[in-house]
Amino acid sequence: MNEYIATEQLIYLFDMAGVAVFAITGALAARGKKLDILGVVVLGIVTALGGGTIRDISLNDHPLIWVEDTAYLWTAIISSVSAFILCRYLAYPRRLMLLLDALGMALFAVLGAQKAIALGMPPVIAVMMAMITGCAGGMIRDILTGQIPLILQRNGELYATCAMLGAIVYIAFSGLVDGGLLMLVSIMVALVVRLASMYTGLELPEFVMKGHKLEPKDKVNRER
Amino acid sequence: MNEYIATEQLIYLFDMAGVAVFAITGALAARGKKLDILGVVVLGIVTALGGGTIRDISLNDHPLIWVEDTAYLWTAIISSVSAFILCRYLAYPRRLMLLLDALGMALFAVLGAQKAIALGMPPVIAVMMAMITGCAGGMIRDILTGQIPLILQRNGELYATCAMLGAIVYIAFSGLVDGGLLMLVSIMVALVVRLASMYTGLELPEFVMKGHKLEPKDKVNRER
Amino acid sequence: MNEYIATEQLIYLFDMAGVAVFAITGALAARGKKLDILGVVVLGIVTALGGGTIRDISLNDHPLIWVEDTAYLWTAIISSVSAFILCRYLAYPRRLMLLLDALGMALFAVLGAQKAIALGMPPVIAVMMAMITGCAGGMIRDILTGQIPLILQRNGELYATCAMLGAIVYIAFSGLVDGGLLMLVSIMVALVVRLASMYTGLELPEFVMKGHKLEPKDKVNRER
Repeated sequence: MNEYIATEQLIYLFDMAGVAVFAITGALAARGKKLDILGVVVLGIVTALGGGTIRDISLNDHPLIWVEDTAYLWTAIISSVSAFILCRYLAYPRRLMLLLDALGMALFAVLGAQKAIALGMPPVIAVMMAMITGCAGGMIRDILTGQIPLILQRNGELYATCAMLGAIVYIAFSGLVDGGLLMLVSIMVALVVRLASMYTGLELPEFVMKGHKLEPKDKVNRER
Repeated sequence: MNEYIATEQLIYLFDMAGVAVFAITGALAARGKKLDILGVVVLGIVTALGGGTIRDISLNDHPLIWVEDTAYLWTAIISSVSAFILCRYLAYPRRLMLLLDALGMALFAVLGAQKAIALGMPPVIAVMMAMITGCAGGMIRDILTGQIPLILQRNGELYATCAMLGAIVYIAFSGLVDGGLLMLVSIMVALVVRLASMYTGLELPEFVMKGHKLEPKDKVNRER
Repeated sequence: MNEYIATEQLIYLFDMAGVAVFAITGALAARGKKLDILGVVVLGIVTALGGGTIRDISLNDHPLIWVEDTAYLWTAIISSVSAFILCRYLAYPRRLMLLLDALGMALFAVLGAQKAIALGMPPVIAVMMAMITGCAGGMIRDILTGQIPLILQRNGELYATCAMLGAIVYIAFSGLVDGGLLMLVSIMVALVVRLASMYTGLELPEFVMKGHKLEPKDKVNRER
């Protein structure tokens, strides 16, 4: 019983951390776009809650978490406003941003898989839900700011792959290991692979058309 | 009883006016894009019904209003087609467009707040629903036509802020004042602040990174 | 009874064919974007299942078909991966692509109309659902890859119009003719008009502002 409550609390804590972290990345995506504070908050909210919203609507799991518990909205709002204010006084924290983004992705991916499994979904759906929860918010953020979504333009760096890996670890050991521990381990797997990919340039095979030669990593999409 | 019916009718009237007005702005967004008549109608429908659809799906309020009452769809279709035809003979009505867009935003924002309150939602959710209803349709329109959403690139002009203000007025006095009157006043607040912002250049603080100086209003995003 | 089963099976077959075909067009849209294999699969899945998902969420028809029957997801994944692999060895099949895209649109449009009619929706909603099912997946694909949606930038070629025509034929004769036969005929209508439009340049009136002269078909939007 105690353990069940502890896992529930851990999920809530991770969820809030993911919301805060993604809201900050959303707010910082306003860089160079001349947005006002409300635009920044809107970007923060959409980035933080977009993925979970699409997941829950797809699974018909109502009421939506942020409609039921307004702490989610407030967390997103306060995080965005804080980012807005701090950015006036601090240099753009590029490394921190990438770390926060990786952490948010790892948290949300595992929470997405956990929710689908808890609802009795088959593994492939749980993996889909992990990827939606972990990546969709960031995709909407990128579309709203006029960019090709980060996860699609990664130039070989792993991103959605890490969400998938974290979810697969969670699903494979679900029911065999203590829930809270398993979540922690799965999140670490997703996070570590993501960071390793960023710093070592680990990558998946690239899409190539016949007649186009493989080029070294370039900046075609990144510059846009 | 009579009064209740009157408020219901007022809501329906305002809703239809919002649909017509937003459908026209959607159709006119086709300017310079070489769309055919069906593309124009699609843009009109999406702009007019997109915000309300996202709101109702988020609140799990089914059936969707335009699925239940086809008058909404027909209003959007007829308004778009009329705009398509009239544009061949009239000069682009820039001021009228901005006025209609402001009116649609004000109507939809207050109707969104009204619906959330009627469903027993807390204030912060009602404000969110007001902003979704008032702004999401236009955001989808801008994304479909390849632009950074108007509400995000306003160069300091207030837009979503006005939707928020209208909603806050409605929520603050909800239950204290006659429903129909309160809606009228809230809509006027949102509309007047929007128009004042357009003509006087009222604005919110801008997002600035340390080391970037504040520039005068420029056209960086607007030109895209 | 037998006939009913046969129609059900035909629907399932057509649905799977549409998923496979759209997943391939989604994967091929990765051309020139430097995506890795997972990005390609994500694009394929979104293109194949996006339209049906929006339709079913709008109609509140849960569980979503790909959540209930994982064969849909697997079909989309396998088709995308196949396209990813084959593209390394074959020249870009431009004509085949356009044919597959037209086929997917025709299949999905008629299936969308069929579903709405089966749920007792009025004709205008059935037409909307046909257009959503046939066109929305491709629109999301185009937005994710940073393009103005194909159906909006067709430079006069008919696309959504064909989805609409197929749906209208299906709706007009629904209940009068055998279901399976009617579906086949409606799909052929949508497909043939689409192909005729591509090869003969059939088109709808274009959106023109007063003072802008009609130009010959150009590449303004296509190049982006």
